[in-house]
Amino acid sequence: MKGLHFALPVITLLLAAACGRDGGTTATNELKSPDGSLQLRFCLLDGGAPAYTLERNGETVVDLSRLGFDLTDGKSLKDGFHVTGVDYDSLDETWHPVWGEESEIRNHYNEMSVTLEQGSGEAKAPQNGVGATDPGYTGDPGNASGKGAVMRLRFRLYDDGLALRYEFPQDNKLRYFNIKEELTEFAMTADHTAWWISGDYDTQEYNYTCSRLSEIRAHSKSMRLGNASATGFSDTGVQTALQLKTDDGLYINIHEAAVVNYPTANLDLDDRSMTFRIHLTPDAEGVKGRMQAPCVTPWRTVMVVDDARKVLASRLILNLNEPCALDDVSWIHPVKYMGVWWEMITGKTQWSYTWDVPSVQLGVTDYRALKPHGQHGANNENVRRYIDFAAANGFDALLIEGWNEGWEDWFGCQKDYVFDFVTPYPDFDLPALNEYAHKKGIRLVMHHETSSSTMNYERHMEAAYQLMNRYGYDAVKSGYVGNIIPYGEHHYSQPLINHYLYAIKEAAKHHIMVNAHEAVRPTGLCRTWPNLIGNESAMGTEYRAGINPGHSCILPFTRLQGGPMDYTPGIFETDMSVTAPGQHGKMRHTICNQLGLYVTFYSPLQMAADLPENYARFPDAFQFIKDVAVDWEKSLYLEAEPGKLIVTARKPRLETLNSGRLNGKSGAYEYVFKDGKAHDVWYVGGVCGEEAQEVTVRLDFLDPALRYEAVLYADAPDADYETAPQAYTVTPITLISSDTLKIRMARSGGFALSLRSL
Amino acid sequence: MKGLHFALPVITLLLAAACGRDGGTTATNELKSPDGSLQLRFCLLDGGAPAYTLERNGETVVDLSRLGFDLTDGKSLKDGFHVTGVDYDSLDETWHPVWGEESEIRNHYNEMSVTLEQGSGEAKAPQNGVGATDPGYTGDPGNASGKGAVMRLRFRLYDDGLALRYEFPQDNKLRYFNIKEELTEFAMTADHTAWWISGDYDTQEYNYTCSRLSEIRAHSKSMRLGNASATGFSDTGVQTALQLKTDDGLYINIHEAAVVNYPTANLDLDDRSMTFRIHLTPDAEGVKGRMQAPCVTPWRTVMVVDDARKVLASRLILNLNEPCALDDVSWIHPVKYMGVWWEMITGKTQWSYTWDVPSVQLGVTDYRALKPHGQHGANNENVRRYIDFAAANGFDALLIEGWNEGWEDWFGCQKDYVFDFVTPYPDFDLPALNEYAHKKGIRLVMHHETSSSTMNYERHMEAAYQLMNRYGYDAVKSGYVGNIIPYGEHHYSQPLINHYLYAIKEAAKHHIMVNAHEAVRPTGLCRTWPNLIGNESAMGTEYRAGINPGHSCILPFTRLQGGPMDYTPGIFETDMSVTAPGQHGKMRHTICNQLGLYVTFYSPLQMAADLPENYARFPDAFQFIKDVAVDWEKSLYLEAEPGKLIVTARKPRLETLNSGRLNGKSGAYEYVFKDGKAHDVWYVGGVCGEEAQEVTVRLDFLDPALRYEAVLYADAPDADYETAPQAYTVTPITLISSDTLKIRMARSGGFALSLRSL
Repeated sequence: MKGLHFALPVITLLLAAACGRDGGTTATNELKSPDGSLQLRFCLLDGGAPAYTLERNGETVVDLSRLGFDLTDGKSLKDGFHVTGVDYDSLDETWHPVWGEESEIRNHYNEMSVTLEQGSGEAKAPQNGVGATDPGYTGDPGNASGKGAVMRLRFRLYDDGLALRYEFPQDNKLRYFNIKEELTEFAMTADHTAWWISGDYDTQEYNYTCSRLSEIRAHSKSMRLGNASATGFSDTGVQTALQLKTDDGLYINIHEAAVVNYPTANLDLDDRSMTFRIHLTPDAEGVKGRMQAPCVTPWRTVMVVDDARKVLASRLILNLNEPCALDDVSWIHPVKYMGVWWEMITGKTQWSYTWDVPSVQLGVTDYRALKPHGQHGANNENVRRYIDFAAANGFDALLIEGWNEGWEDWFGCQKDYVFDFVTPYPDFDLPALNEYAHKKGIRLVMHHETSSSTMNYERHMEAAYQLMNRYGYDAVKSGYVGNIIPYGEHHYSQPLINHYLYAIKEAAKHHIMVNAHEAVRPTGLCRTWPNLIGNESAMGTEYRAGINPGHSCILPFTRLQGGPMDYTPGIFETDMSVTAPGQHGKMRHTICNQLGLYVTFYSPLQMAADLPENYARFPDAFQFIKDVAVDWEKSLYLEAEPGKLIVTARKPRLETLNSGRLNGKSGAYEYVFKDGKAHDVWYVGGVCGEEAQEVTVRLDFLDPALRYEAVLYADAPDADYETAPQAYTVTPITLISSDTLKIRMARSGGFALSLRSL
Repeated sequence: MKGLHFALPVITLLLAAACGRDGGTTATNELKSPDGSLQLRFCLLDGGAPAYTLERNGETVVDLSRLGFDLTDGKSLKDGFHVTGVDYDSLDETWHPVWGEESEIRNHYNEMSVTLEQGSGEAKAPQNGVGATDPGYTGDPGNASGKGAVMRLRFRLYDDGLALRYEFPQDNKLRYFNIKEELTEFAMTADHTAWWISGDYDTQEYNYTCSRLSEIRAHSKSMRLGNASATGFSDTGVQTALQLKTDDGLYINIHEAAVVNYPTANLDLDDRSMTFRIHLTPDAEGVKGRMQAPCVTPWRTVMVVDDARKVLASRLILNLNEPCALDDVSWIHPVKYMGVWWEMITGKTQWSYTWDVPSVQLGVTDYRALKPHGQHGANNENVRRYIDFAAANGFDALLIEGWNEGWEDWFGCQKDYVFDFVTPYPDFDLPALNEYAHKKGIRLVMHHETSSSTMNYERHMEAAYQLMNRYGYDAVKSGYVGNIIPYGEHHYSQPLINHYLYAIKEAAKHHIMVNAHEAVRPTGLCRTWPNLIGNESAMGTEYRAGINPGHSCILPFTRLQGGPMDYTPGIFETDMSVTAPGQHGKMRHTICNQLGLYVTFYSPLQMAADLPENYARFPDAFQFIKDVAVDWEKSLYLEAEPGKLIVTARKPRLETLNSGRLNGKSGAYEYVFKDGKAHDVWYVGGVCGEEAQEVTVRLDFLDPALRYEAVLYADAPDADYETAPQAYTVTPITLISSDTLKIRMARSGGFALSLRSL
């Protein structure tokens, strides 16, 4: 307690009393983590209101926090409960992800489930229905059990955090019920530091703000982006994953896991009591969750660790998700790719084909009769040029955006039949280009910009996926730019959560991997559906000059907690007027910062986003991107502080080094299998924020019996994102495990280090 | 003018002056019908506000009525116009419907299109887009034409009525625009009599009220049904088609034709001025039409005839629709069917299978492990019994409802994944029952109750239609009971209009005919998509005792104006406690009323809805249902007055008499082709309302060279729907064309007459 809120200590004592510390008014149920460091207490407050606290080594981390729901019918599930059962369980297992930061993950927790009943029930017999004019058209199954409303709380304690969820069993007075708001609280003990973005129903594409909790309100009013889809709800609303740091040096991270058939949670802060409360995303009728028992909510997670590196190392979110649902995962593989994309983002060329008509109608507009404006990026000649470069440089695939009819008026019109996902422009020969790419050993990556017209996407999805199968595409980048159709829904509402999963499941039937942009930020579903190989759902490279230095030092603590991000790094030319003459703006990073991202940001789908001609100007720096792998056997977090710096070391997984190529060798494979035999390889990457950093990197993770030829890519002494962003040094060096390296990173700079055993 | 509103005459003179009668302030453009009886005048009022009037033989029928729109961006398209062009055209063609009340229809009109421009434009060059953070992400095509907002009014005058619609050409300042409300008016000249139902966004399932326009307000407040889906918007709102009658004996009928990608129109009455104004159905965001130029609105129609029989004979709505869009229509045929349905509507049996669980989850709930409640109507044995009866009695098909998993909790829960449309209950052997039916010469009719969960239906539609193809179903009854998903949408909103048509188009790809219940009331789309063989969208037989006498004498003037209705007539047992012991209620008709419906209500999809055992009790009356055809060469309307009586004579189309059977002979075929040769056949049917009627039927439509053996089914002298609903006489009689028949119909009674040349 820092004494900021004098009322707090009093309340804490009172509530501690109520929750059993000094005996209390009702029973307390307790749970400890496997190593005993975390302790959860559950209790019913006066009036039968469920609540919990969380302690770490005897210190309160989460103060007394209430649980429950308000329902749309005026009833609530927040008090009037009594406990009907308490059960304990534990699990210690190891599982193996299809792809990831490591090849095996330990799932070790202690669990307590508390079954609550509200009031009592009365047994009711079934009643048959009679048609048309009678209410209850089809009758009523009654309530054979005679139970009241039954709600079960399941708590899991890991050594690094707490997870809790609500469950509603079938034997229950509750059958169909609609949530007005979920009331789960996370009562913080003080005015912590937070790295946050504004609460929103539609977008996560914000720069992060670092501030005290008490300062969120003042910042919110000024930070709202001119984002086409921003829908804020509160001046103290924030999104998850939320990274906090106490003045005692504890790192608290609040998020959710396994969001299925439920709306996305934001957090709303009461900045008098420093209590966060869940704030769900409403649907078009304002309902925040349409439930049918038996059902469960997502897991609400509170990670508590004493070292920022442990946040990055935590697998809490993945562990809380259901195991892989697919029997056959042989068709899923990492993808290192380039794209006919950055030239459109920068404005050098266009997604669209023509300005000959004010708008287009698919199937009616005859593109062959229209005059092209000559700036269409996805044309046959340009695409072949990219294919040549990507294939020759060891990439697995090439994304092409703007290949299909409809880009002339796709944005901001909330157009329903905006794309059909199957009809190419006249200058994009889909079959020929795929054949060309395959001959060179790479695949093309499909692009499905839905323009948020989701019902249209679903109508065309089967034909779209079939087209992909027919021409050998096995991965698609989808997008949800703009206001959602069905009208009135939000990107993060329950129907949209269901839509995104529907697209993933249908893709899996077609052996297609999905990278969904502007969709909801992930909550670990990739464990269950490993064909979900990427999302965007944060501010990424496309924001160009708008990205604040340090952004990349925050994302792994926040956005990446639930799953990988297609951040699309690798921009070597930071001056937009060079890439796209006539445009302006300067990105704020050095080249080595971009190199460092390939190791810092875990993603099985990793892009080298810049233009081939920009890479051709810096072949020595580009070499690292060619050499780096994207799927890992093991990962170590050497240094980390949110917003300040991150240094990561990763060891590649040999089995997937070449799984992305159709033929030929990937760059990473060529690096690891030099001379045809597998070498012991590590990659180390560093990035830092607004302040230059000097790091000391210990190499004690290397095999002490081996010597390694390494290449260090580092910011030159005069490197600076404003004055000399392209100043770097490439230094070959032989290293052994007892070595340490002192490396200086310029502000918004970084470094990369590849090591290969001799 | 009846002097009810003293202000009216003054305004009429003023406006008549403005619209060119006495010179006026702006130019008037005029159009006459082919026979010259109807005259339309269009003019721009002061301020450039478009308006029109309609006269019949010099008498005003529609007083000065405004035109235009309010848009959601605050702009409007209702004034500030000048005329840039006036064009005339005419058409006189004959076309042949795939099925209908006659085999050929004349389309004869004069047309005037008036092009209006609002303000002026300025030419604007295209502007390229730059990605992500810039507004206009993809640029702007500009406005090459430099035009202002262009709106074209197209007027068509038929001898029996006016049609008008709005068109927005491509060369236009308007590109994407959203409608806040359409402002089209229909100014009535007096307090006419109307047969109406309350304006609603979701349902047409009301009894009709007959009253003066001035009485609508008082009636509305008391008439609102306890319908699960009713969504009224105004105490003076009414639905179309609206049937009016002036004190001078003119019949005015207001409706719309060809509603495609546009919301459904209701009418809102200003009961001081007796002016109707279009009131469109809002979507979930309150928008009443999302438009992309070039586009057109539906046709607004005003039929004006001096004889009620001409309303029934009018083909105005069909003529305004686009011609048939299908190249191959060989798979479309009429369907005379029975159903495992009435027993569930009456409560004798259930759609559902079990009460063992409080709710079900498709794919999770194992029905084979549950205890059936024993009242499931769609079980193998019962279905075979119906198949036997239907096949033996010359029917084409059997509908079965409740065949599929999910009926236990389908109603009133707004459940998303409510049905999958492919998984039968354990006691419904889908393959075996189809095989059994086919051997007997009939098909089964599929049932897709969507429970208004339309996104779920679309997700499963392809699999559902494929299942139908696989097992030989070629017709489906779909249903939209309950509140629409997407949440916040209405049955009659633009996205739903698009959904219904999507289902029809996808069905056509699969050679499937559609009968959509609770969908929007039709507006003639069956001309373009003749696989749309039926809709409900009115109060039908399933409302049982709730149906007012005379209802069937109104529907042909209203609901049937836009397309056929699956009214499901043929209930011989009016006492529900006889059909379903333990239930109650008495329907208010005689048996002969039901027989008369088969000729009165045109529908290519015609049901004999009662139970086989009820038909078996009255085989002589049932004979007419067996004999009657459902598709016609020619139709004559012998007598008609809304709510009072209708007498219709129809001649069957020989080519389609047996097109519904898989093998064997249909009942109608056996009747017409007695002795293996085609006889000259007519059917005559009469129905009446709350007052008994005596009609004189002239048979001068018969071939004067032939003699006809006829059977007259008539209400017995003591027949009465309360005391003796099943009292009827069946009289064989030989008739020639010079004969007349005097026939008495009991109140809510009728008669049927089959005539076959000797």
